[in-house]
Amino acid sequence: MGDAWVIAAADRLLAYESDGLTAYRRTPRAVVLPKNTDEVSRVMGILSQEGVTVVPRGAGTGLSGGALADGDAVVVGTARMTDMLKLDPENRLARVQPGMINANLTAVAEPYGLYYAPDPSSQSACTLGGNVAENSGGPHCLKYGVTSRYVTGLTVVTYGGSIVELGGFGREPGGYDLLGVFVGSEGCFGIATEIEVRLLPRPEGVSTLLAIFDRLSDAGSAVTEIMAEGLLPAALEIIDGATIRAVEASVFAAGYPTDAEAALVVEFDGIEAGLAADVERAVIQCREAGAREVRTAASAEERLALWRGRKKAFGAMGQIGNDLMVQDGTVPRSKLTEVLRRIGEIGARHELLIANVFHAGDGNLHPNILFDRSDAEDLSRVELASTEIMAVCVEAGGTITGEHGVGVDKRRYMSLVHSPDDLDAMRRIKAVFDPLGRMNPGKVLPDPPAVAGAAS
Amino acid sequence: MGDAWVIAAADRLLAYESDGLTAYRRTPRAVVLPKNTDEVSRVMGILSQEGVTVVPRGAGTGLSGGALADGDAVVVGTARMTDMLKLDPENRLARVQPGMINANLTAVAEPYGLYYAPDPSSQSACTLGGNVAENSGGPHCLKYGVTSRYVTGLTVVTYGGSIVELGGFGREPGGYDLLGVFVGSEGCFGIATEIEVRLLPRPEGVSTLLAIFDRLSDAGSAVTEIMAEGLLPAALEIIDGATIRAVEASVFAAGYPTDAEAALVVEFDGIEAGLAADVERAVIQCREAGAREVRTAASAEERLALWRGRKKAFGAMGQIGNDLMVQDGTVPRSKLTEVLRRIGEIGARHELLIANVFHAGDGNLHPNILFDRSDAEDLSRVELASTEIMAVCVEAGGTITGEHGVGVDKRRYMSLVHSPDDLDAMRRIKAVFDPLGRMNPGKVLPDPPAVAGAAS
Repeated sequence: MGDAWVIAAADRLLAYESDGLTAYRRTPRAVVLPKNTDEVSRVMGILSQEGVTVVPRGAGTGLSGGALADGDAVVVGTARMTDMLKLDPENRLARVQPGMINANLTAVAEPYGLYYAPDPSSQSACTLGGNVAENSGGPHCLKYGVTSRYVTGLTVVTYGGSIVELGGFGREPGGYDLLGVFVGSEGCFGIATEIEVRLLPRPEGVSTLLAIFDRLSDAGSAVTEIMAEGLLPAALEIIDGATIRAVEASVFAAGYPTDAEAALVVEFDGIEAGLAADVERAVIQCREAGAREVRTAASAEERLALWRGRKKAFGAMGQIGNDLMVQDGTVPRSKLTEVLRRIGEIGARHELLIANVFHAGDGNLHPNILFDRSDAEDLSRVELASTEIMAVCVEAGGTITGEHGVGVDKRRYMSLVHSPDDLDAMRRIKAVFDPLGRMNPGKVLPDPPAVAGAAS
Repeated sequence: MGDAWVIAAADRLLAYESDGLTAYRRTPRAVVLPKNTDEVSRVMGILSQEGVTVVPRGAGTGLSGGALADGDAVVVGTARMTDMLKLDPENRLARVQPGMINANLTAVAEPYGLYYAPDPSSQSACTLGGNVAENSGGPHCLKYGVTSRYVTGLTVVTYGGSIVELGGFGREPGGYDLLGVFVGSEGCFGIATEIEVRLLPRPEGVSTLLAIFDRLSDAGSAVTEIMAEGLLPAALEIIDGATIRAVEASVFAAGYPTDAEAALVVEFDGIEAGLAADVERAVIQCREAGAREVRTAASAEERLALWRGRKKAFGAMGQIGNDLMVQDGTVPRSKLTEVLRRIGEIGARHELLIANVFHAGDGNLHPNILFDRSDAEDLSRVELASTEIMAVCVEAGGTITGEHGVGVDKRRYMSLVHSPDDLDAMRRIKAVFDPLGRMNPGKVLPDPPAVAGAAS
């Protein structure tokens, strides 16, 4: 590898002490940065000979702590694996290294009229390898679906250093879906070292509107009505009052009225000729639901301006609070208003500021809790509030994560949505790929229940 | 269960001697027809106590022999499990029993402006349980994706009779994707007894065109050019000359010219206002590729007429031949013309009539081989030709199945696309769900290699 690509100095390791879940920090034993499948295989072979646990890492933007590595583990990072391996416009396929940044794939595909659809909010930083690990979503996944819909092949290196090809035929190869179960396995099965994905043709046109509401529940009603109209927006995003005020107080000010309690971004894409009619119907639904103002965009610049409050929400909150816990849960769309009200009550009870930014169209909530991690009592209130929020989501018929994965953060909630048998089946599926349990330990699955009478 | 729902008389069992892969026939020991999850659980419990192997069966329309059951096995059929359990228009979700016929789900959802997108050609007969088992596709899956994209929850009964809930939260619940790996497991993991699926809003409009070509390769070029234009048709289907002539000679005559060598059906759906422009661009591409005639539909009736030759292709071939082997393979779209030429050569060499009908947009070929199964030599030539066709698909960078599954028919080809390690991983994943190996034995996976020195 060469010394330059093996990081072991304590000061340099600090950069790897957490990912986007900043509440928890640990320092890995070392970080290794291989540059291709062969090097990953050799690195994994050596680490396995020594029985060292391995934590894969992309850009470290994950929000559930999936890249957290304790002092025993070596991080295998993909920061140098950023190449486009093959672009095949005719078949609308790309094969890339896992360290390629999500937005860069679209940049490379754009001259061919193509783009990569899943668009996490972190897309200018997060890697495709990380997206595969977390089965990432994004605002436009309402219409286009999440990462798993686009991955058609993977080259994977497992713990011992074996190189395994999964799919890679432009679609599933037949047989049980090893490829599908690897996507979203959060670095616990192996490291994807090559990724084949489907690209889509750029939609001819895009139309965006921003509706401002005095009540969050009215924005929720507008979402329900737009969907009930049979419209299929590309994105349907709500920013609540607390978030609006955070954005407007920051350098990212987007011109949203600070006395509003919700802003709803609605976007349609497709054939230019049909967009105006869709937008018109959505505007009517917003007004009927009680929007006090509806803005539409006449140019690409205006479109970006309407999006700014949504896109910069996390950045803005980072400026007003010391730390930010970006929570993630899903509920049936019809339960959005009720669940948001209950999240508000949870925040009030724990004296925490919770600002909500979320993918309303598919019921994927992101309650953002502001706190100060140096204050132990603050952190424990965040954990309590998170637990209560998860319980509310599950009680409403939803689940504990929408797109951020389980990681370390959600392990404790897995039993809310999975039976002991399900969890045991997951343990056995992990063992198919990682029989020694040395890939990204302590993530996803809760510790198995103690067996009565078992030897200690 | 009652005697009526346990079939053991030899004459009645004849109806279960094969599925849509009629080349192979065996008679099961018995057929049981439970009516809900609880009954399936009790049936599976009793069968497992006796160590009896189980073969799940929907409508028996599968084309890879997945429902073939030998004399030791009991078939557990879903023919009585046809209920809509819950229709939730607001969240665009439906929960159904597995014996519900695919088209019936759309019929029930239609009054709410919704429909179920995956549309196998057998959709008026095939069941949603079978669709889940085979991860079925259909003409419109080019734009909308296959079954796995729509399944959000399953209740599953495993061999011992355990009832397992997978997902059911309107999206994946978090953790390793047990739900995803069950979809497409071809009845080898357990029986899905309840299925939760996403519904989509009905597109506002649909426009269809039919282009007639003197050369199959020109139709292939038209497909490439339409996709290169950045258009995203809902369906892009080719019917070759042999198929056209079969259709026109049958009761399903659709008015396609019998001297043509290919007909291409192109369909767009979406917002009414945008459709005309899309159709116009596709017409231009067809003409430039050499279409001698392009027909468009001005009414719903005309639209159905354009589709008739495609939709009735299998029925028409059933009329002209004794038996039909509907093959299934995929190739990169850019290789379609070359692969079709080689399939033609294979047919000529084995003196077999091979008619091609296929999902050209996603490179999913269906070479249909006409034969007489009572003629052993004929059958052996079909098997040889099938093997050669599979090899050609794989050599072109494709794979051995697009949407019909592996079943018994494709087991022998699995090693063309999967390494021994992959196959071993699949065996271990099956064992997570079915450790005793009694669910649908002899399907999907080839027999494991004999271990040297192992006790016999």
